[in-house]
Amino acid sequence: MIEVNNNFEQLPVSYLFSEVGRKVAAFKEKHPGREVIRMDIGDVTKPLFPSVIKAMHEAVDELGSAERFHGYGPEQGYSFLREAIAEYDYQRRGIHVEPSDIFVSDGAKSDIGNLGDIYSRNCKVAVMNPAYPVYVDDSVIDGRAGVLENGIWSNLIYLKCDANNGFLPELPDVRPDVIFLCFPNNPTGVGISKSQLKEWVDFAREQGVLIIFDSAYEAFVREPNIVRSIYEIDGAEEVAIEIRSFSKTAGFTGLRCGYTVVPRQLKGVYADGKEVALNTLWNRRQTTKFNGASYVAQKGAAAIYTPEGRADVIKATDYYLGNAALIRQAMTEKGFLAFGGENSPYVWAKGAEGADSWKVFEEMLNNFGFSTTPGSGFGSQGDGYIRLTGFNSRENTEKAMRKLTE
Amino acid sequence: MIEVNNNFEQLPVSYLFSEVGRKVAAFKEKHPGREVIRMDIGDVTKPLFPSVIKAMHEAVDELGSAERFHGYGPEQGYSFLREAIAEYDYQRRGIHVEPSDIFVSDGAKSDIGNLGDIYSRNCKVAVMNPAYPVYVDDSVIDGRAGVLENGIWSNLIYLKCDANNGFLPELPDVRPDVIFLCFPNNPTGVGISKSQLKEWVDFAREQGVLIIFDSAYEAFVREPNIVRSIYEIDGAEEVAIEIRSFSKTAGFTGLRCGYTVVPRQLKGVYADGKEVALNTLWNRRQTTKFNGASYVAQKGAAAIYTPEGRADVIKATDYYLGNAALIRQAMTEKGFLAFGGENSPYVWAKGAEGADSWKVFEEMLNNFGFSTTPGSGFGSQGDGYIRLTGFNSRENTEKAMRKLTE
Repeated sequence: MIEVNNNFEQLPVSYLFSEVGRKVAAFKEKHPGREVIRMDIGDVTKPLFPSVIKAMHEAVDELGSAERFHGYGPEQGYSFLREAIAEYDYQRRGIHVEPSDIFVSDGAKSDIGNLGDIYSRNCKVAVMNPAYPVYVDDSVIDGRAGVLENGIWSNLIYLKCDANNGFLPELPDVRPDVIFLCFPNNPTGVGISKSQLKEWVDFAREQGVLIIFDSAYEAFVREPNIVRSIYEIDGAEEVAIEIRSFSKTAGFTGLRCGYTVVPRQLKGVYADGKEVALNTLWNRRQTTKFNGASYVAQKGAAAIYTPEGRADVIKATDYYLGNAALIRQAMTEKGFLAFGGENSPYVWAKGAEGADSWKVFEEMLNNFGFSTTPGSGFGSQGDGYIRLTGFNSRENTEKAMRKLTE
Repeated sequence: MIEVNNNFEQLPVSYLFSEVGRKVAAFKEKHPGREVIRMDIGDVTKPLFPSVIKAMHEAVDELGSAERFHGYGPEQGYSFLREAIAEYDYQRRGIHVEPSDIFVSDGAKSDIGNLGDIYSRNCKVAVMNPAYPVYVDDSVIDGRAGVLENGIWSNLIYLKCDANNGFLPELPDVRPDVIFLCFPNNPTGVGISKSQLKEWVDFAREQGVLIIFDSAYEAFVREPNIVRSIYEIDGAEEVAIEIRSFSKTAGFTGLRCGYTVVPRQLKGVYADGKEVALNTLWNRRQTTKFNGASYVAQKGAAAIYTPEGRADVIKATDYYLGNAALIRQAMTEKGFLAFGGENSPYVWAKGAEGADSWKVFEEMLNNFGFSTTPGSGFGSQGDGYIRLTGFNSRENTEKAMRKLTE
């Protein structure tokens, strides 16, 4: 038998979502008459925009036509999409990003994992605690996490987030090589201001650190001082990769399309001291291990940048933000300490002092008939919290919050 | 600056396809009146089947409907597709593969690369020479190739293929951990018989080797004794992963969908001696670093397994096989030693004794007005050969072959 990647042996299986499902099912069986509203839903629920649907029907017809058939596309994505992204997501917002900096993919989750191919296995990685679990799991698979002891990986640097710092971490004492930052944050829903993010960019420039900035939720930002792109900060193009997704922006969770920005100014160094652009390495990785995103999905994504599509994005994200605002208001009214729910579809709420996340989860389910996501699933600092999302319908959100406050 | 993956530093840039394009462009400029027919085309040219187009339109409509919208799907692929694959590609051919052995993805190129995450970095890799270049390039990126000297990677085992062995390699003297085999082969077009492949499976079972069997071209097999799936060989489920693609089978090159079979019986071992199913590891890799193939592409792929779709696959592959047969016949008639072109869309032809691949390429272009792919781009043993493909239209193929033989 062959030797496998030993890093998998230590990787704990996450039962978070299956356990939520199991507890909800058990509750329903015990209380057959009672409805359970899913306030833990992490997926979008609204259909794709008419402009996107129209563009995809046209793309499908092209693929069925002898004259207009498209085979292999560029691994980096079609120019029509890279140019639209550069113009509307960056240049029209005063940010200098070129189409050649942009790599279209099948989604943010793939890119976050696959980026691990281009930086050294020796890189020390910092993650926020709590955080989207794949930053840690990817680091484990790639051999950068070290040994797991009491839920702590020996080689990771944890950026502690809590109520005291408003879930905005402080700069680490030890220099990491790579820092994963996510704003607006999943799970806490907290956004970051330009002046706050500038501290991180300045730190990265001084210390020679790479920031991988996950801005999958940027479309939910409404306040001008809250960052949508790390490249709003001067000099960030020399230290940061930005990961974007159409999943929450435009409901592409099942369609699979996203993109990653690797500015040509961003450099790394080989062991022999020779500098190399990370754009060159990522291009090589993607052309070798990837064959481009689906043409139909790329055509759909391009439609988001039409006048109709841009209006639809605002309308859809406004709807989910409206739900999140209702949740935050109700939770606050009920006495919970709540974060997020502004510039984000997520609300992050603290249970009673001393109650762990599962206890808070059970209370919400038993007392008010809705399910939530236990915060402990996102890291030790998430314990005692629950995540609620704005992705259900307005009607269901209102119903759940009425149960809470009545 | 951060340290990058040092393996990229040694990875040579391949200019093969850009150089072919450059030479064709230069020829056209020099001979403005002369047409160049692309016999080097590696992409399909026929549109998607009507049954696939219909299924994709329906899928798009579902995504646009509030009631029938689909968000995140299973990372392993939807059951409707995994079940269709298990039934039609395996069970109806007498091969025992379960839906849970099958992982749907965005394509074979991604899977070939990403599989490197589950076996140890210390694994010694064997590749056919010549071969599809990504087996080597992926091994380089992952740090398994060693040092490049005179075009040879110190840690790779090269399975020499040439006219003497009919481009069917012999078993290696040194035990590899992982062997990449591709049949019907790209670039040589050679298929493998059951008795020949049995030698490899028996070797793998005796020596504890993992075979990664790339059968992207299985849909072109017409002779019953030529292998379509490695699982036709008894015991292969204990030693082999099989990679499949809808790209050449059904024209999905731009749509992106394929699948990989990792049988539950296939085991690996951690450094501490504990056994683990590779299916478990691949499942963990895919659920962590991948978020499923596009729903629209999966719905299109499922349509290939309807009675209409299955007939369309045969019709389309018959068409390309017809082209390949014409090429093989014409090349042979003209005195070239030719391989493939049966059970494969590729014809592999040897130029005059002593002529390198680029010289043969130039001769074909100058004397007969068609472009080919220099065999040296697939490895040192490919030098002196060119690859011709059946993917152009019948009309163009006939025209090019007439120029050759008249």
